[in-house]
Amino acid sequence: MTRHYNFCAGPAALPAAVLERAQAEMLDYQGHGLSVMEMSHRSDDFIAIAEQSEADFRALLGVPDNYKVLFLQGGASLQFSMLPMNLLGRGGSANFVHTGIWGKKALAEINHLGLPHHLAASSESNGHTAVPRQDAIQVSDDAAYLHFTSNETIGGLAFDYTPSAQRRDGTNVPLVCDMSSDILAAPLDVSEYGVIYAGAQKNIGPAGLTLVIVRDDLLDQAQSPIPSLFNYRAIADANSMVNTPPTYAWYLAGLVFQWLKDDIGGLAQMEAINQRKADKLYAAIDASDFYANPIAKPNRSRMNVPFVLADSALESAFLAEADKAGLLNLKGHRSVGGMRASLYNAVSEDAVDALIAFMADFEQRRG
Amino acid sequence: MTRHYNFCAGPAALPAAVLERAQAEMLDYQGHGLSVMEMSHRSDDFIAIAEQSEADFRALLGVPDNYKVLFLQGGASLQFSMLPMNLLGRGGSANFVHTGIWGKKALAEINHLGLPHHLAASSESNGHTAVPRQDAIQVSDDAAYLHFTSNETIGGLAFDYTPSAQRRDGTNVPLVCDMSSDILAAPLDVSEYGVIYAGAQKNIGPAGLTLVIVRDDLLDQAQSPIPSLFNYRAIADANSMVNTPPTYAWYLAGLVFQWLKDDIGGLAQMEAINQRKADKLYAAIDASDFYANPIAKPNRSRMNVPFVLADSALESAFLAEADKAGLLNLKGHRSVGGMRASLYNAVSEDAVDALIAFMADFEQRRG
Repeated sequence: MTRHYNFCAGPAALPAAVLERAQAEMLDYQGHGLSVMEMSHRSDDFIAIAEQSEADFRALLGVPDNYKVLFLQGGASLQFSMLPMNLLGRGGSANFVHTGIWGKKALAEINHLGLPHHLAASSESNGHTAVPRQDAIQVSDDAAYLHFTSNETIGGLAFDYTPSAQRRDGTNVPLVCDMSSDILAAPLDVSEYGVIYAGAQKNIGPAGLTLVIVRDDLLDQAQSPIPSLFNYRAIADANSMVNTPPTYAWYLAGLVFQWLKDDIGGLAQMEAINQRKADKLYAAIDASDFYANPIAKPNRSRMNVPFVLADSALESAFLAEADKAGLLNLKGHRSVGGMRASLYNAVSEDAVDALIAFMADFEQRRG
Repeated sequence: MTRHYNFCAGPAALPAAVLERAQAEMLDYQGHGLSVMEMSHRSDDFIAIAEQSEADFRALLGVPDNYKVLFLQGGASLQFSMLPMNLLGRGGSANFVHTGIWGKKALAEINHLGLPHHLAASSESNGHTAVPRQDAIQVSDDAAYLHFTSNETIGGLAFDYTPSAQRRDGTNVPLVCDMSSDILAAPLDVSEYGVIYAGAQKNIGPAGLTLVIVRDDLLDQAQSPIPSLFNYRAIADANSMVNTPPTYAWYLAGLVFQWLKDDIGGLAQMEAINQRKADKLYAAIDASDFYANPIAKPNRSRMNVPFVLADSALESAFLAEADKAGLLNLKGHRSVGGMRASLYNAVSEDAVDALIAFMADFEQRRG
């Protein structure tokens, strides 16, 4: 067995230690005589797994007691519908800071549903190479919440600050953030947010699980009627088991949380590693005329590093040779082309070193 | 490692051969250097897995070319919302044959959504111990479809015929069936149905995957607007990849389909095994005054066998001793109590023999 270096944007690399543990427990979970996959979600054994997973997640992020953590299905994209249906029941409009393709999709969905929305700021004018600054964010008077994407997975554009917005009466507009591609990459002050949501398949676990962190006061603002399985309050009251949850993905997420706690030492340590990885790769790109990344330095993503070659005709050779060298999934998103190296938590510093060495070698041979 | 006999109603037992294969491939799928969980859903490798999984499923059931197979999230319960939103866009009402708790939930959801519905038949008057006969099904003049639950998982009540309904002009009302707990248990004539749907966690694979088989002419009858991820047409056009699908569950389902084809030999062989298993267990129950099952013989489920003890005070002793003997998850659903043995495809004849032997022994000692 050989494990290659996997730079996939998602579903993404998982820690080998997590996969090894899952492998060992696949047919017999801790002497219980069955796989986690084969357990009733209402059994004591699975409830213990689910509760430990949530407890570890809460501990890692320091989730305050007045927030619920929901374990859902449907991906972050389903939240593009669920969010406005849950938060606009008392009127008002969804406000958006648009910084790339995922934010645009969130906006498109609310438009498709015919629900009130307002574009509070956009980085479209700079080609999404720098996020709007705080003073450029103009929320509407009826803003029910302000939505942004902390890290645009495709563009590689990340916020270097937490945006905020006040109503005329001085109260804060609840902040809603799609953190799919950078949750758990660094410590976070959850109390600044109303809702944080994330598809699992980058830093949490396998595809098919979505985590939503929601402040208690936002649980009871749903429109009516909406599908029962959309209702945050009902889901929270049922501990995310209104119906059968994706039990195996939930378990695997728990193993990832344990790895972050025990093997890495927590999110501050994880952030230091992530910062080193990203710094190295951007330094290599910036030191060369052969590679380029267009993002303003303060907004460069630590998770997703898109880059292009000076000679785009060499792209397919780059990708083919990288693949042969065991550096997988470096192709940029089909909508933008070029290259992209995703450096999620499970991508080791060794992987980044190997990529940088390959890039230098390729440049020397073909540049 | 010991594998116990697992009679869980869902998430349910999986074939050991499937889990062993998944275990072997957990860290390195066929020499590709990564887990299936870590693959982009748009990679050639995963597309091949997904297409093979669908092809095997279609082959097993003989799904005609004018039906799409959708691989979704959210469980069968999410279909309780998605179905009417997809099928009532041209008007008319959803008609229901109500034979137990799951059918009741489907009906409750459409009522919650405020969409038109009509109760065409119900077995409530006989305590859901026998399904309504064909001539008792009275559809409304505006019936857009007729929904039924082929096998009620909690009650252990199964249809012994395929219901049908005609409009005044003689055309058939599309038949919609929740087959969560008996799909793949026996051959099926898919062409009799408009839509078949099933949560995976009984006979298909792990929880977190839902399969929907839908006839092409029913893809374009959606209400507007509905959430983009609810739209059958959009999902079908994107080969179930509008967003990231539950890739690992999809792969595991594929392994189950291969097991059904190669190890079992197909659905006719599977049905023969399932029939033997169920016949044995019902015979043991009927031969005793100590155990009882209330369902009319033609409607007894081959998948879920609920039973009670003559002395209900012995239930907890029965369950505790069974558990100690390696016979897991025999407790009835919390809404009805008693016992329930689920005999899905992956539950072996040996498991049923062991259960019957335990029941005889328990009766002798405690009866």
